Amino acid sequence: MSNEKIEKVRVFALGGVGEIGKNMYGVEVNEDIIIVDAGLMFPDDDMLGVDIVIPDVSYLIENEERVRGIVLTHGHEDHIGGLTYVLKQLNVPVYGTKLTLGLVEEKLKEAGIWRQTKLHLIDEHSNIVVGSTNVSFFRTNHSIPDSVGICIETEQGYVVHTGDFKFDQTPVDGLQADIGKMAAIGQKGVLCLLSDSTNAERPGLTKSETEVGHGIQEVFENTVSRIIVTTFASNVHRIQQVIEASIRTNRKVAVVGKSMVRVITIASKLGYLTYPKDIMIEVDEINKYDDEHITILTTGSQGEPMSALTRMAKGAHRQITITQYDTVIIAANAIPGNEKSVSGIIDKLHRIGAEVVYGQARVHASGHGSQEELKLMINLMRPKYFVPVHGEFKMQHAHKDLALSVGIPEENIFLVDKGDVIEFAKGQARKAGKVPSGNVLIDGLGVGDVGNIVLRDRRLLSKDGILVVVVTLNKKTSQIVSGPNIISRGFVYVRESEKLLEDANELVGSILQKCMTENVNEWSSLKSNVREGLSRYLFEKTKRRPMILPIIMEV
Amino acid sequence: MSNEKIEKVRVFALGGVGEIGKNMYGVEVNEDIIIVDAGLMFPDDDMLGVDIVIPDVSYLIENEERVRGIVLTHGHEDHIGGLTYVLKQLNVPVYGTKLTLGLVEEKLKEAGIWRQTKLHLIDEHSNIVVGSTNVSFFRTNHSIPDSVGICIETEQGYVVHTGDFKFDQTPVDGLQADIGKMAAIGQKGVLCLLSDSTNAERPGLTKSETEVGHGIQEVFENTVSRIIVTTFASNVHRIQQVIEASIRTNRKVAVVGKSMVRVITIASKLGYLTYPKDIMIEVDEINKYDDEHITILTTGSQGEPMSALTRMAKGAHRQITITQYDTVIIAANAIPGNEKSVSGIIDKLHRIGAEVVYGQARVHASGHGSQEELKLMINLMRPKYFVPVHGEFKMQHAHKDLALSVGIPEENIFLVDKGDVIEFAKGQARKAGKVPSGNVLIDGLGVGDVGNIVLRDRRLLSKDGILVVVVTLNKKTSQIVSGPNIISRGFVYVRESEKLLEDANELVGSILQKCMTENVNEWSSLKSNVREGLSRYLFEKTKRRPMILPIIMEV
Repeated sequence: MSNEKIEKVRVFALGGVGEIGKNMYGVEVNEDIIIVDAGLMFPDDDMLGVDIVIPDVSYLIENEERVRGIVLTHGHEDHIGGLTYVLKQLNVPVYGTKLTLGLVEEKLKEAGIWRQTKLHLIDEHSNIVVGSTNVSFFRTNHSIPDSVGICIETEQGYVVHTGDFKFDQTPVDGLQADIGKMAAIGQKGVLCLLSDSTNAERPGLTKSETEVGHGIQEVFENTVSRIIVTTFASNVHRIQQVIEASIRTNRKVAVVGKSMVRVITIASKLGYLTYPKDIMIEVDEINKYDDEHITILTTGSQGEPMSALTRMAKGAHRQITITQYDTVIIAANAIPGNEKSVSGIIDKLHRIGAEVVYGQARVHASGHGSQEELKLMINLMRPKYFVPVHGEFKMQHAHKDLALSVGIPEENIFLVDKGDVIEFAKGQARKAGKVPSGNVLIDGLGVGDVGNIVLRDRRLLSKDGILVVVVTLNKKTSQIVSGPNIISRGFVYVRESEKLLEDANELVGSILQKCMTENVNEWSSLKSNVREGLSRYLFEKTKRRPMILPIIMEV
Repeated sequence: MSNEKIEKVRVFALGGVGEIGKNMYGVEVNEDIIIVDAGLMFPDDDMLGVDIVIPDVSYLIENEERVRGIVLTHGHEDHIGGLTYVLKQLNVPVYGTKLTLGLVEEKLKEAGIWRQTKLHLIDEHSNIVVGSTNVSFFRTNHSIPDSVGICIETEQGYVVHTGDFKFDQTPVDGLQADIGKMAAIGQKGVLCLLSDSTNAERPGLTKSETEVGHGIQEVFENTVSRIIVTTFASNVHRIQQVIEASIRTNRKVAVVGKSMVRVITIASKLGYLTYPKDIMIEVDEINKYDDEHITILTTGSQGEPMSALTRMAKGAHRQITITQYDTVIIAANAIPGNEKSVSGIIDKLHRIGAEVVYGQARVHASGHGSQEELKLMINLMRPKYFVPVHGEFKMQHAHKDLALSVGIPEENIFLVDKGDVIEFAKGQARKAGKVPSGNVLIDGLGVGDVGNIVLRDRRLLSKDGILVVVVTLNKKTSQIVSGPNIISRGFVYVRESEKLLEDANELVGSILQKCMTENVNEWSSLKSNVREGLSRYLFEKTKRRPMILPIIMEV
């Protein structure tokens, strides 16, 4: 009958699948669109000059009136870093836990949209209605406190997004992932589970954060020098453990690096980081204490060239210079793509003669569950349909194998790309086309104004540089009035290649003369003749293809 | 007394320390300079447009008359890839084992210097005299056959270079590393040991290449589809095992990819690769066989965009396209810096739906010994002085710790940078200054014509592109005759930023007018005024700093 409406549920990813970063997922329940997370991604090597990458949200803008809110799982950049850009185009309420909103508020203020944004504080026990859809939460463990999974209620069962998670039996804050609640959700019936695939290739169990604390404590106990510790600024629990190791070994703690200071300030204010006030000192107080009574907590765990740690190692930091008497703990792993810069900073520190402690084994643990934990999640939720998310495609694929191993039928597992829509009706799923999706590149203040053409040009320029050829013609007399002059940038040293450039000059001159005597003198063909002729000559001589920009003027 | 001469031995690295690649070492015995290896390095991300990097050999050229020869440890690119460039500047004899010289000959022919180069074939039993210095060899295991360590005789004891090595108790060719000979050398007395640090951070023992064969065989036995295997072209033993697995599972083998074809041709001709002729087929014969009877051996294990594997995956290869019915074995690890491109190709293959087998555990083993093997080498050689080489500084540093653990006194271990000279006299070592050393960048045909200025320009261009500002002035009338016209490349889409560029145009016009009315009209100051004014304006508007190239002409 026409008055009984069949519920339609649609699930898709705008980012976070087939890539590491910019996590953003959409769940549609009839007329409600609920967004989970709004992250950023750091650019690939071939996105030259790009600062950050955010998801294309044109689908959400087209359907603005149906977008009910953005629900956040936790406060990592790959989950909240795109939020301000999205909210500028789409003013919808934002839901998150205390620490997550604490970090979000900062961003909103910087972006000047704090007032206009409706922020709703939730916790693991909240039951909220977004649009006309019930949403609840469950506590997870991750490398930042206050992380939750999200549970969206539909007539066909729950749509569950795990967020980023591990099962830590000895979490630093004593708050284990709420396995009981997950099991209860599973018993009530999960239509579709979207789960974190980051470590789907890694066997076994992920180490507890508390073990990292032991590793750090051990280093502190065996060190009489100054200790410099770098880790991810958002890893509040690790920071807590560094502070506690400092207390036990009678050290004061100084914090260096913008993001580290920011997170510690927020986390302390909100009570996620607790320590006696007098343990913390200002950087310029360091010299009041002996080295063995100092811990420096700093940014730069990825070897970023401008980070505090790199500057300290280069002697380019205003207050602190690392010497052979220091011990440096790199309590982090290299994010994919950063391997070389991380071993670069380790090398630099070794050269200085500093003691360097690094490597997953002792002083780092992943925030993402390994294979046994991923299987446990699936077994707790017992979903009818399974969608591995949050990872490169090979990780989603490995996660699929795990789901198969615990009995999810192959036809109920969906490996999705960005934009793929899975539609559920009467408890049955099907692929239902695509919504627009992609990368929006942010370079400086420009959002999306750097596209393929600009990137292609930057790639060309970066490879072999550019030659600007300037010449003034008198078409009536068919004479070259001035030039050709060739200006080279990023191609060859002018000094070392004078002959080459002189010959190039002559060549251009003769090409133009030839054109004019043959009455080829539309700009376009003059220019293309110069471009092609010169390009051929230079490739033959140098096997390089610089960009060639002919500038032909007339008097 | 004046007639008894004190022997001076000097040891230094021109490459291969503090970096992965371009291994090149110098050993001076009185008047003889003996070079060990002449490798290349692949450029870092910041060496934009550079094809390869070779060592600076200016020290050798200055001392040409004393350079007696180049002795090669094995045929990998990071040990022989720089040879042709060096020989063009320095025509000295080259010593190497059969396979090594086989690979070298190809390069010499391509470079057109085969005739003029004196090649001397050696084997593990050779005793040769280079200059007036005795040089002998010992067999090692590595990921390419015919690898040797080098033993240079001096009055003060042997200077030993291990080359790249592991101790493989079950090598594919049955030729274990010659531990007996190493022990004998150690007993005779080693003054200084230079040893491979690649895996100094890795505990335990490196897996035998034979185990990789078992892993590959297992995959072959459980696969009924076509199998595509990619590995390092130079890993002849792994290729041998792929061929044998193919024979056992009744498959023909087709070889794809220039370097793979080249190495297999040479290795077969020289007898390092043995198989019944009829096992090999041409690529265009593939379709004559059912999929389950085909193995394709190909290049592309590093996910190189132009490699055969990547093209097959993209459907851009002329003869072969990978489909969901194929199984692809990536029998390699990602070389540092290639992690992203390798997981990129794995992703691409998964998307196609192909079965992908990858990951060290099953189908790859390192060619470099781990900590226990490195300790064994030191214990066999019992050197007086120890110099960890072949690795990033952190690896040399880890190798130093291993040497300490087996009893080498700290003051007898030298962590060297490129160019550092260690001098031995009367059996005593001391640091003795530096010889010139560094990177020579090769871009196309240009050797060393790309330096810091060119790279800096390429970096600027790659980040924010370039704006060329063209204007013609009449200085007498202080009028702008034509322009300013702004041409943008790699900065912003012109279409999307018309307003910005129009305003920039106006700004430049007003800057020039102001200059001329104030009689500031030397080119230099006109240009710098335009550059600074426009740069400030654009940064304010876009937070980007494109290169600005003012071209001011006069009529």
